[in-house]
Amino acid sequence: MATFVSLAPTDVRFPTSRELDGSDAMNPEPDYSAAYVVVSTDADDGLEGHGFTFTTGRGNDVQTAALTSIGPWLIGRDVDEVLNDLGAFGRELTGDAQLRWLGPEKGVIHMACGAVLNALWDLRAKRAGLPLWQLLARMTPEELCDVIDFTYLTDALTREEALAILRGAQAGRAEREAELLIKGYPAYTTTPGWLGYSDEKLVRLSKEAVADGFDLIKLKVGASVDEDVRRMRIAREAVGPDIAIAVDANQRWEVDQAVEWMSQLAPFNPRWIEEPTSPDDILGHAEIRARIAPIAVATGEHAHNRVMFKQLLKAQAIDVVQIDASRVGGVNENLAIILLAAKFGVPVCPHAGGVGLCEVVRHLAMFDFVAVSGSTDQRYIEFVDHLHEHFYDPALVDHGRYIAPTMPGSSAQMRPQSIADHTFPGGPVWAGV
Amino acid sequence: MATFVSLAPTDVRFPTSRELDGSDAMNPEPDYSAAYVVVSTDADDGLEGHGFTFTTGRGNDVQTAALTSIGPWLIGRDVDEVLNDLGAFGRELTGDAQLRWLGPEKGVIHMACGAVLNALWDLRAKRAGLPLWQLLARMTPEELCDVIDFTYLTDALTREEALAILRGAQAGRAEREAELLIKGYPAYTTTPGWLGYSDEKLVRLSKEAVADGFDLIKLKVGASVDEDVRRMRIAREAVGPDIAIAVDANQRWEVDQAVEWMSQLAPFNPRWIEEPTSPDDILGHAEIRARIAPIAVATGEHAHNRVMFKQLLKAQAIDVVQIDASRVGGVNENLAIILLAAKFGVPVCPHAGGVGLCEVVRHLAMFDFVAVSGSTDQRYIEFVDHLHEHFYDPALVDHGRYIAPTMPGSSAQMRPQSIADHTFPGGPVWAGV
Repeated sequence: MATFVSLAPTDVRFPTSRELDGSDAMNPEPDYSAAYVVVSTDADDGLEGHGFTFTTGRGNDVQTAALTSIGPWLIGRDVDEVLNDLGAFGRELTGDAQLRWLGPEKGVIHMACGAVLNALWDLRAKRAGLPLWQLLARMTPEELCDVIDFTYLTDALTREEALAILRGAQAGRAEREAELLIKGYPAYTTTPGWLGYSDEKLVRLSKEAVADGFDLIKLKVGASVDEDVRRMRIAREAVGPDIAIAVDANQRWEVDQAVEWMSQLAPFNPRWIEEPTSPDDILGHAEIRARIAPIAVATGEHAHNRVMFKQLLKAQAIDVVQIDASRVGGVNENLAIILLAAKFGVPVCPHAGGVGLCEVVRHLAMFDFVAVSGSTDQRYIEFVDHLHEHFYDPALVDHGRYIAPTMPGSSAQMRPQSIADHTFPGGPVWAGV
Repeated sequence: MATFVSLAPTDVRFPTSRELDGSDAMNPEPDYSAAYVVVSTDADDGLEGHGFTFTTGRGNDVQTAALTSIGPWLIGRDVDEVLNDLGAFGRELTGDAQLRWLGPEKGVIHMACGAVLNALWDLRAKRAGLPLWQLLARMTPEELCDVIDFTYLTDALTREEALAILRGAQAGRAEREAELLIKGYPAYTTTPGWLGYSDEKLVRLSKEAVADGFDLIKLKVGASVDEDVRRMRIAREAVGPDIAIAVDANQRWEVDQAVEWMSQLAPFNPRWIEEPTSPDDILGHAEIRARIAPIAVATGEHAHNRVMFKQLLKAQAIDVVQIDASRVGGVNENLAIILLAAKFGVPVCPHAGGVGLCEVVRHLAMFDFVAVSGSTDQRYIEFVDHLHEHFYDPALVDHGRYIAPTMPGSSAQMRPQSIADHTFPGGPVWAGV
């Protein structure tokens, strides 16, 4: 019998603020960071599980402290027992009455639970010798539903309805797996659109994106409407009428302000407006969507759990479900959200970027294609060309499509040298700052 | 010029699980705890600001780590500048782009911001020589609105509307202050109703509550419907038909389950059902309320910020707004919530209990009476008779009414011996556990 012997967190920070990569209207100077965790066992295979929460710098220490607090749940437990029933372990962790008080199921403590669950999924996939997306895509509908916590969902999605959706997609799973391995999955790019970039850089990167095969790019907006109109015009002229341009306000607006601002951007035919207002404001998103139709509304990267996604869908507040690999309660909760989206017929277009989000979330989108939606229509995974070199199994995009990963695991594993260099505050990158 | 010289957190835990005090359907064995913080200055007056976040045990270390992370915002700053514009300081703290990523405005990081802001309000009130409720009740409408962050509220409450509400209540402020000092503020008691108590204890404490002058008591429900019907019958028989009985499910139910369960408790005339389902489920609360009318729905102790309260009110999801002193972004955000409740005409009945919540939240209810609602009709502050002996200025209830505190400050300050005894894990109460 093998047992878990350690849960080791590290505070890893990349000094991205020095180059204004990742600058948007709400996050002017982020240092992309990971509260990183490795779970180890005493099994002979020597395999470890890796996971993380993405943050933007300050507070990564608090997130790391939260990971430490989860250690006692795992250390000493039977590896097979935990990994074979990650649904039960997830419910135990996110349902613990005392930890739950710090959320419930939101913020620092919930993201820490998610990082640990993701690390366990990474380990499970490595032990199975499969990339996470294939591990998930080959589980039975019953096994998948056992992973999901249906608590607070049953007015929108019951276990029986989820089973029916999954069973309906069983035919063709093998063909779609094969298709993914050949063709990959559609990507869009945010690389050209950061607020801190010059016009020249915006034009150059927009044209490069088109040349690289992307048919959807995204611009950050929300700091100044005149600037946004100007930049949107520049980008539209750079890419021409046939390339879609999404815009992202990163929560900067009041409800009325979102409606007015989008009326000024409407002539440039935005594909969607992302995070127009507070991620908590379900009713606000619904009102904005109704008032700016037919422009689509997207949100999700800061929606903190399945209950929020349930309501966004029930209220017809969004056209695009933007799951995030590290915000909610891990793979477990993202499975619930993917099935909610399927129930309501809304496409999932994952949020990515940051540190490692592209690497991990592609597994979830590919699972969605193989085992749930069966389609890539209206679906894209965000791609940002930052920091991939720090990962063993980096996200690769070719001609506008994510290549399907084949390395066993969830792709969360960072290179040891990258971790050592960027450990905060002791690593050489931060020394003397 | 005086400056802030320290922000010192302590992990304080009371072993309440040993007696099942505080046991409910979601929290079977809480250890009532405080992530406690003291801010100090180099001013000659020697005054300190005290604040805390209430938790139920495990994870109090994470909450304490979050307090530590806020130190750099305060230490070295000018005391007068910060205290004279706590609105600006609050927006700076809760709006910091990097810390905000850990929420936004929810969970561990937001509660830590709230604890620090509350400590600053405590200090400001002490320097003014006034209890917090009187300090607030004597501020001008403009000064009060300067404290509030109206971001994400303007579709429901603008600054101008808030000013109008406050100006409308200016007449009679002095009379209501005087009235409070003589008559106090209505209280209800949860002391009889914990799930872990025997029938004998339930009957005895219910009768004692009536004898003590309470006209509203509360029972915990949600673990077993048959048990709840039985206990509700026992309590109703113990107190008679004229005493109101509220019930509290602590988030245990699905939407349909809440409706069915309440139909079985309806014959005993419950005053309200509190936290029937997930605190995030605005639409769920609205559906439950519509289906169990005329039974009232109450929630708020886990509503994580003003955006959630805005929606609960806009969606007509609740009849009772249960603010909590330590869940949201401090006094600042609770002022916003109190004004939202006034705008929608819904009474505020604060959640209390735990550690120190009765002590602090009474100030907010009393401010509401003097300067906002002008009424105590349909309004009560929760009272639980636990752990008050650890505070300098303990909550006192006489004949079913909270006595108005007169000691300067917010009443958050705990006795040094209590802190030393209960510091986790090194204090004597925890030694050898």
